[in-house]
Amino acid sequence: MLSMQKIMQAQEILAPAIYKTDVMRASTLTETCDLWLKAENLQKTGSFKIRGAYFKMSQLTEEEKRRGVIACSAGNHAQGVALAATANGIRALICLPEGAPISKVEATRRYGAEICLVPGVYDDAYRRALELQREHGYTFVHPFNDEDVIAGQGTIGAEILDQLQGVDAVVVPVGGGGLISGVAFAIKQLDPRVKVYGVQAAGAPGMVHALHEHKLSALDRVSTIADGIAVKEPGSITFSMTEQYVDDVVTVTDDEISAAILALLEREKVVAEGAGAVSVAAVLSNKLPVDHKKVCCIVSGGNIDVTILNRVIRRGLVMSGRQYTLDLELPDRPGQLTAVTRILAACGANVTSVHHERGHAGWDVIGCSLRIEMETRDFAHINEIKQKLTEAGFRLL
Amino acid sequence: MLSMQKIMQAQEILAPAIYKTDVMRASTLTETCDLWLKAENLQKTGSFKIRGAYFKMSQLTEEEKRRGVIACSAGNHAQGVALAATANGIRALICLPEGAPISKVEATRRYGAEICLVPGVYDDAYRRALELQREHGYTFVHPFNDEDVIAGQGTIGAEILDQLQGVDAVVVPVGGGGLISGVAFAIKQLDPRVKVYGVQAAGAPGMVHALHEHKLSALDRVSTIADGIAVKEPGSITFSMTEQYVDDVVTVTDDEISAAILALLEREKVVAEGAGAVSVAAVLSNKLPVDHKKVCCIVSGGNIDVTILNRVIRRGLVMSGRQYTLDLELPDRPGQLTAVTRILAACGANVTSVHHERGHAGWDVIGCSLRIEMETRDFAHINEIKQKLTEAGFRLL
Repeated sequence: MLSMQKIMQAQEILAPAIYKTDVMRASTLTETCDLWLKAENLQKTGSFKIRGAYFKMSQLTEEEKRRGVIACSAGNHAQGVALAATANGIRALICLPEGAPISKVEATRRYGAEICLVPGVYDDAYRRALELQREHGYTFVHPFNDEDVIAGQGTIGAEILDQLQGVDAVVVPVGGGGLISGVAFAIKQLDPRVKVYGVQAAGAPGMVHALHEHKLSALDRVSTIADGIAVKEPGSITFSMTEQYVDDVVTVTDDEISAAILALLEREKVVAEGAGAVSVAAVLSNKLPVDHKKVCCIVSGGNIDVTILNRVIRRGLVMSGRQYTLDLELPDRPGQLTAVTRILAACGANVTSVHHERGHAGWDVIGCSLRIEMETRDFAHINEIKQKLTEAGFRLL
Repeated sequence: MLSMQKIMQAQEILAPAIYKTDVMRASTLTETCDLWLKAENLQKTGSFKIRGAYFKMSQLTEEEKRRGVIACSAGNHAQGVALAATANGIRALICLPEGAPISKVEATRRYGAEICLVPGVYDDAYRRALELQREHGYTFVHPFNDEDVIAGQGTIGAEILDQLQGVDAVVVPVGGGGLISGVAFAIKQLDPRVKVYGVQAAGAPGMVHALHEHKLSALDRVSTIADGIAVKEPGSITFSMTEQYVDDVVTVTDDEISAAILALLEREKVVAEGAGAVSVAAVLSNKLPVDHKKVCCIVSGGNIDVTILNRVIRRGLVMSGRQYTLDLELPDRPGQLTAVTRILAACGANVTSVHHERGHAGWDVIGCSLRIEMETRDFAHINEIKQKLTEAGFRLL
């Protein structure tokens, strides 16, 4: 059974090995509540996972340490286990599906783990890891359904109460449920007045379903940009702890998550991955009863692929009227392109790409299509541009 | 004259008003030295400028406070002055050139300043600010050439020595020289053993020129993505202090700055603006004699426009082989596009855009051009793709 004593033991063991991450004021994100961020994205390995993994390693017997550990993950858990094992002088083998992003494989290797690439998808890698465990007697480090792992993650709850006096609510990302189980347990032991809310991606609502149906079941598929919490089925321990200690679990959409990532980047100057930003997304899109409260969102990780980040920024720019793609029909006469670009320049739009093509199917044979991508200030600016072009006789598509 | 006593006074006055920002370990960025970051990008208003501005306000007489302050800036100084004035109950008027980015104007307004948009460029706004100052008796808050402002920035030097025992060198972004003057003065007073290095953008090397020629002069033009340090002429006070206290000032290119921004984003999960990243850029591109030393880079600000950030990421992806644009010639026969996309899929390239056009000028009349943008793993992956396409008989352009 998990106990407060175990979490305090984990705190002591973790103290020299991890960062006690900042609780940062996030006053620019919202005025509806007094918002703070527990910045576990700035934790070693870029996520909170090092906490559970490290404490788990510290609890192994000498014989278990000698044999080594095995885990299956393409993400933060892999890096946490790798660094925790290396720091404890333990051999770690990480099974990953062959298609895992090179950057994550390399990061895991850099932290000192051996890599076993398994043909197929995650489930195949998981099966292979269990086989290898049985063959060689490795200790399997589960990403969430393990009391030592949960105790390690729970240290975050204790830290928040220590760092942020008078906090009313703590908001926690939920995938398999390891983080929220530990955090909720610690907080309800130390100060039951504090609310604990969980947040899942709408495309991977396993815990929400389980709570609703009062039993575990696996989702057929999960689909979200928050890959760190794209879990089909929560654990038995984590489900029962969440049911007992958590006040509510809500969901947020990928668009809400993207907006939160962009807000954290632009306003708070920190990088959050999708899974790390769901807590903030829930507050910013008013999914939780926290108006006028002192709220701490756990930003659980920052390991977002920059390619994805790039897409999130682009989508955020489009959604906020700061990037616009204009399609218009151009009479095929000399000087038309000049006329258009002159109007755009006068409006202060910053053109980033032009595509001009003749003879679009289904059109007047002498017509041209023009697509212009530009940077704009906001939607009012876009409307001004469209109006000026229309007034000048151009047909917008 | 600046004194250590004044800097200590500034520390006391600033303590309740600003954040004592973290000094973060940046072990993933380089192995050539023991690298730490003083994260002033996570400071209130997103840059260190609040320090100098706030201390300056605190030193005004009651009569000066009653009249209010004026400043000219489109950037971090404007936001620093705005928030510092609001916090001290002082009226602030900020002159900006009319073309200043809407986002910066809005941020300054949000911090409580009045805005005066002046037609023309920065120099016009500056002249207008001086006019208004003379007319109304406002106090002009200079962005760098002011001893109170320098004392405020100097608190960062004292903080670093307090937070990071055994530091060998501190690396500081240099524009007008206010930050480095204060930091170098404080450090050389407290521990002259510690080296202080300045870094300028290669496109705005005003301080480097002044040091070289042993006198002040203005650059004709400045051009860099580090807009926060794009200053034509350093100040008289800051030049003389830099000459006296700073060990060396070097320059970095925009590409080196971009790479540093991307590394901070990807590895350290923090957002730096160009000016804020030059210190890290200098270390990562080996411009400073700091091998095996304990080095603290001041990351002075994080206020980068996300449109620029988006471009920096894209350039970084291209430069590291993770985004590639393929141009090839396609025989105009059915099935050719399918053949190409099948090869790309087999190679694991992730296609993000396809542009297929017939009848490119100067070509065989039956040829087609195909441009495909894709996400790739690295340069080896790109070469593999090119080779497979060549083997299949396609002509790459």
